[in-house]
Amino acid sequence: MPLKLYYARGACSLASHIALEEAGAEFEAISVNLASGEQKNVDFVELNPKARIPVLVTEDGILTENPAILLYVAMRFPEANLAPLKDAFKLARILSFNAYLSSTVHVAHAHGPRGIRWADESSSLEDMKRKVPQTMADCFALIENDFFEGPWVMGQDYSIADMYLFTFATWLEADGVDPSGFPAILDHRNRMLERPAVKAVMIREAS
Amino acid sequence: MPLKLYYARGACSLASHIALEEAGAEFEAISVNLASGEQKNVDFVELNPKARIPVLVTEDGILTENPAILLYVAMRFPEANLAPLKDAFKLARILSFNAYLSSTVHVAHAHGPRGIRWADESSSLEDMKRKVPQTMADCFALIENDFFEGPWVMGQDYSIADMYLFTFATWLEADGVDPSGFPAILDHRNRMLERPAVKAVMIREAS
Repeated sequence: MPLKLYYARGACSLASHIALEEAGAEFEAISVNLASGEQKNVDFVELNPKARIPVLVTEDGILTENPAILLYVAMRFPEANLAPLKDAFKLARILSFNAYLSSTVHVAHAHGPRGIRWADESSSLEDMKRKVPQTMADCFALIENDFFEGPWVMGQDYSIADMYLFTFATWLEADGVDPSGFPAILDHRNRMLERPAVKAVMIREAS
Repeated sequence: MPLKLYYARGACSLASHIALEEAGAEFEAISVNLASGEQKNVDFVELNPKARIPVLVTEDGILTENPAILLYVAMRFPEANLAPLKDAFKLARILSFNAYLSSTVHVAHAHGPRGIRWADESSSLEDMKRKVPQTMADCFALIENDFFEGPWVMGQDYSIADMYLFTFATWLEADGVDPSGFPAILDHRNRMLERPAVKAVMIREAS
């Protein structure tokens, strides 16, 4: 049974999608249309009660949450060298970076389109939307100045941190942030777009 | 050099604190007073530019974010059996559970005390506060009904998922959620409190 990835076009599932492609995994990519609410269909909620993407279907069961899927892909395809699996400190640094992306950066972004998760009044939702450019810029300043080692996130070795950073970096303009304020991240985004695996996934998701 | 953990009393750092104690690690626990803003002191921000706890200081550098510190402790002290380190799927399931806690459950809670991260108007902050009991209850319903295997989070084996769940379970009453609606989680919380490592940490944090 090949792996199956449920993703949504341009959503955070892009990170897991790229990881599978970089690993040379045999997998089926299945698009879920969030705009039409496909993630709330009975079949999908039965698969993933969170009603969210990404979902990776494996022969052992399903996996959700990008940080988990990314580590799984790195462990299942060790020959792809997507994470320093034997070095507890280096691996934890990658997980720390990815945890920041999922629990702070993605959450900052989500207050634009999905503020209804946390408040009910339309005035609150507008207030949240107004703050997104600042919170996202604050996050990316911290990444640019303190976390990003270069040329890849963790230094010389390309890893599962790069795919996840790239995903959020593609959202900067839509979140009202000028990426030219973050030259290292902008350069990283451009170099990511030159990778054959990233190109293949970008074209698949756009088609 | 022993490990050093910067924690705040009763905060999310409790998970990492318990993990170190369960692992039998030699470590120094240093309390940071969030109420008086110690996390924003120059020395602390130099250590951790995020100005957040927990921070684990190791001989290789610092680690932040509970999901990363928890995996690090499990990998550094493998004899404590705190995670299925050799099984990619089982390990990823734990990371998935912990990612849900950090990026959904902790975030739901944070809209009570820390809504100012995402909105500016006092009416928005009040709106967010009002919604916390519902969002937290929704999260715990999903955990109780869909994720919690029992007797421990991942089934028969106690793991780094248990310490992290316990941490948020101790906040339920303060978040306006009646824990009796979640009998498996309430029972888990009671059994956690019987563990010598958990008792030791609860007493240290309260002192």
